[in-house]
Amino acid sequence: MPTFHHLKSVIRLNELAEEPVDLTLDNTLNPKRIETMHVEALGLKLFFGTERVSEITLNALYDLAIETDVVKKMSDMQSGKVINLIEGYESENRAVLHTAMRDIFDNRNTAQEANEATELAYKELEKLKHFLKNLEKTDRFTDMVQIGIGGSDLGPKAVYLALEAFHKPHRRVHFLSNVDPDDGAQIFRHLDLEKTLVVVVSKSGTTLETLTNEALVKEKFKKAGLNPKDHFLAVTGKDSPMDDPTNYLASFYIWDYIGGRYSVTSMVGGVAIAFALGMDRFLEFLRGANAMDKHVLNKDPRSNLPLLSALLGIWNRNFLGLPTVAIIPYSQALSRFPAHLQQLDMESNGKRIDKRGRPVDFDTGPIIWGEPGTNGQHSFYQCIHQGTTVVPLEFIGFKQSQYKEDVVFHDTTCQEKLLANLFAQSIALAAGQASDNPNKCFPGNRPNRILLGNQLDPYTMGAILAFYEHKVVFQGFMWNINSFDQEGVQLGKKLALKIVEQFASKKQGKGLDTKSFPLGAAYLRHLE
Amino acid sequence: MPTFHHLKSVIRLNELAEEPVDLTLDNTLNPKRIETMHVEALGLKLFFGTERVSEITLNALYDLAIETDVVKKMSDMQSGKVINLIEGYESENRAVLHTAMRDIFDNRNTAQEANEATELAYKELEKLKHFLKNLEKTDRFTDMVQIGIGGSDLGPKAVYLALEAFHKPHRRVHFLSNVDPDDGAQIFRHLDLEKTLVVVVSKSGTTLETLTNEALVKEKFKKAGLNPKDHFLAVTGKDSPMDDPTNYLASFYIWDYIGGRYSVTSMVGGVAIAFALGMDRFLEFLRGANAMDKHVLNKDPRSNLPLLSALLGIWNRNFLGLPTVAIIPYSQALSRFPAHLQQLDMESNGKRIDKRGRPVDFDTGPIIWGEPGTNGQHSFYQCIHQGTTVVPLEFIGFKQSQYKEDVVFHDTTCQEKLLANLFAQSIALAAGQASDNPNKCFPGNRPNRILLGNQLDPYTMGAILAFYEHKVVFQGFMWNINSFDQEGVQLGKKLALKIVEQFASKKQGKGLDTKSFPLGAAYLRHLE
Repeated sequence: MPTFHHLKSVIRLNELAEEPVDLTLDNTLNPKRIETMHVEALGLKLFFGTERVSEITLNALYDLAIETDVVKKMSDMQSGKVINLIEGYESENRAVLHTAMRDIFDNRNTAQEANEATELAYKELEKLKHFLKNLEKTDRFTDMVQIGIGGSDLGPKAVYLALEAFHKPHRRVHFLSNVDPDDGAQIFRHLDLEKTLVVVVSKSGTTLETLTNEALVKEKFKKAGLNPKDHFLAVTGKDSPMDDPTNYLASFYIWDYIGGRYSVTSMVGGVAIAFALGMDRFLEFLRGANAMDKHVLNKDPRSNLPLLSALLGIWNRNFLGLPTVAIIPYSQALSRFPAHLQQLDMESNGKRIDKRGRPVDFDTGPIIWGEPGTNGQHSFYQCIHQGTTVVPLEFIGFKQSQYKEDVVFHDTTCQEKLLANLFAQSIALAAGQASDNPNKCFPGNRPNRILLGNQLDPYTMGAILAFYEHKVVFQGFMWNINSFDQEGVQLGKKLALKIVEQFASKKQGKGLDTKSFPLGAAYLRHLE
Repeated sequence: MPTFHHLKSVIRLNELAEEPVDLTLDNTLNPKRIETMHVEALGLKLFFGTERVSEITLNALYDLAIETDVVKKMSDMQSGKVINLIEGYESENRAVLHTAMRDIFDNRNTAQEANEATELAYKELEKLKHFLKNLEKTDRFTDMVQIGIGGSDLGPKAVYLALEAFHKPHRRVHFLSNVDPDDGAQIFRHLDLEKTLVVVVSKSGTTLETLTNEALVKEKFKKAGLNPKDHFLAVTGKDSPMDDPTNYLASFYIWDYIGGRYSVTSMVGGVAIAFALGMDRFLEFLRGANAMDKHVLNKDPRSNLPLLSALLGIWNRNFLGLPTVAIIPYSQALSRFPAHLQQLDMESNGKRIDKRGRPVDFDTGPIIWGEPGTNGQHSFYQCIHQGTTVVPLEFIGFKQSQYKEDVVFHDTTCQEKLLANLFAQSIALAAGQASDNPNKCFPGNRPNRILLGNQLDPYTMGAILAFYEHKVVFQGFMWNINSFDQEGVQLGKKLALKIVEQFASKKQGKGLDTKSFPLGAAYLRHLE
């Protein structure tokens, strides 16, 4: 495959980018454009009339998808081909099979690797079902603390919060991630340990923060006269140092083909989410993700939602040169979903070499950030409307609320006001406004799109989660980078261990060791 | 004053930016550099040896501060000069006096406007003190719900969470902001209304979200047979539509010279924070902010912490061309502080015209984002280390934890591990790493600095809050923009009202009104 800038479609797109659609021109952004520029699947509608694309741009983007053969690559991924690698260099050399974790419904993938992964996943789901059934009988546990960091924290927590309206009564999950001792202290301040389960999640069984927090929490149980073995669960890789069922009430497995940021639908998210929602609703969540997995195998980029979204993102990133993306859910329940997507996208595609180890000469993954609307409107929207750095936005909204507790105030409900704001922002950002007062000028042409669902229920949450997983993977395929490793986190870890040793040596009364790592010592000196 | 690019110091800085310090070169980043490049005030140390500056760059930056006379402008602001304006155009035309809210200790500002503002603020503090004292007597209320959005939500909530370790036992505050009906439904699911106070916060008394949520919550109290008047407090502007003490148990005032994003130390933050912390600790928080207000009047940029930080930010933004800033507290308690700073900075400095109404030809406020470390290390740090868009980082850390509940695990405490990671990341990002394996190459030169405090207590929180307020204001002064208005939020509001009316008209059985706002109707059609 030619490198990015040598692709025919990219050459064409570079030409088109010299004069992108100007949405502020009279009648360019009209009702017909909004109505025709949308696609729908699985009850989700993607509106993109407020992006700076014409039919011509879109056709060139579709060509990019075809030229880079991304749907075939997606199919290879779901079938268990080894795609997590850098050719010619030491790398993880693994399959990527998070889709197999939820391929338990109709129309399963028949490839052997995928099938085996699904069988293993199914066993864990059965184990979880029985474990939760037994819990129901005694009703001993009301609270769960999930100890994990990165993908073992952000995604599971985002989904847990998103679906609070569907939780079983009196079941709460808390997430302990940071090695900051105040994180644990704060969480355990108000917990009744007798009624608390602890899930320790680490694929490698060696994550510094997680093991440290496990030790900290075990101490608390022991001090309270409780045996940790009666309260602690493990989610870990088979044969990891944590894979020792004698230490845990129950153990659940994950595998090396499940990356942390893609692990929400594995046992990493499963234990906590199913504890909170109950097994049936957790399976509905998996069903939504699985439906999206099948949808993305659709070869026509025109009707493939994640692929279309990936293409629009590449247009904004590589051709309009926009460095960030804001994800703005008009749904308070999705308050932590942008934090999950920040990891998913930036850890997957924040890369500087392609799959053959060559430094790239184009931009890869953007900076992902975001907070819910309408809150953002009273915070950073000033900068989005009138700042000097253009921010493309991905809105998420729902026709109906979750609790359906609403009031009519000044003739409309809260939900109607919420949607009115969502649609108004989409239009205002794209269209802008002229004025004699320069402070009331809005330059417009702020590209944005809306993903609109009916209601944020478990199925829809699963579909949206997988929508973003696949959007990110499609972009990685088009850039020809490896979206599945994370070598960029190693250097910091290595240097942190050196400073940890300097701390340890000081504690042993040896004084400050300035020799093993002088730069670390320069900071440590200031702690005295 | 010449425009930015015509300033002598800016011309010089543009030359210097052609060859910024390369921190990856042998021995550039050495222990001496880390040790000498730091300044200290109020128990806070700012380390900036890992920024891409030399002594020559620093001197040019100091010249920029002097040429733009920013300390004089800060002094004018604190003295109540009318600085919130755009010359020659309709604008807010107001003083900016958030510093007066906490100028109740030694060495008060003697300017008449500032003095009057402080007298008024003092009255409200006294009122609050008596109100809380009476609460203590009955001990009737355990919970408080603050209804407010933007500055009435983000800052108060960030500080509330930051200081949970110092709360009075059994006092909790919840924050209801979003017009999404699920936000309120979720919060009130587990509250005992009899024991709950509600603070409604809106300076104008007209904020759509806040009034809607007030109506929604009042309904809940009425349905429970309770009189809202016995539970509801108001924080609002004198003579606003909400200034009607007959509706509220108590009313507290703010003034038009307090911008929402600068209002944490006014009654906007005061009622909730003092309810949680008690009055004495709230005053300690104000004392910390006040001490920083005095510190920033120091004319020497070398030793003025917020000014130095502002200058380094301008170097990264305007001369190294970096579009975002990540704020990374190595402190879980500061989990929502980046969201507050996102508003503070982006709403203040996300501007496209200068104070004379001329469009700027340089970049103003960057995109602000961030999450706590060590969590971020397992999330977006891949992109920060190896992505194609360089992200400057502002770290915040503390020598000691808040709760001092810690364990020694593998020879070091959690707090030591936390600090080891903070220092290691600062070094790794700046220094980078060469390797034969391209995936293990780290380009380095990722600029960052560390603000290090002793412990995150109320005084330090106040000082850090004001540190950032002043950093943002100094940058606005140097860019000669108005950091105190937010005209950019008006267009979205205006269009939202049009769509709200379309919803209302439909509800009245008139069908979809496609004429008054056809673009809105194009979206609304899809809700059917």
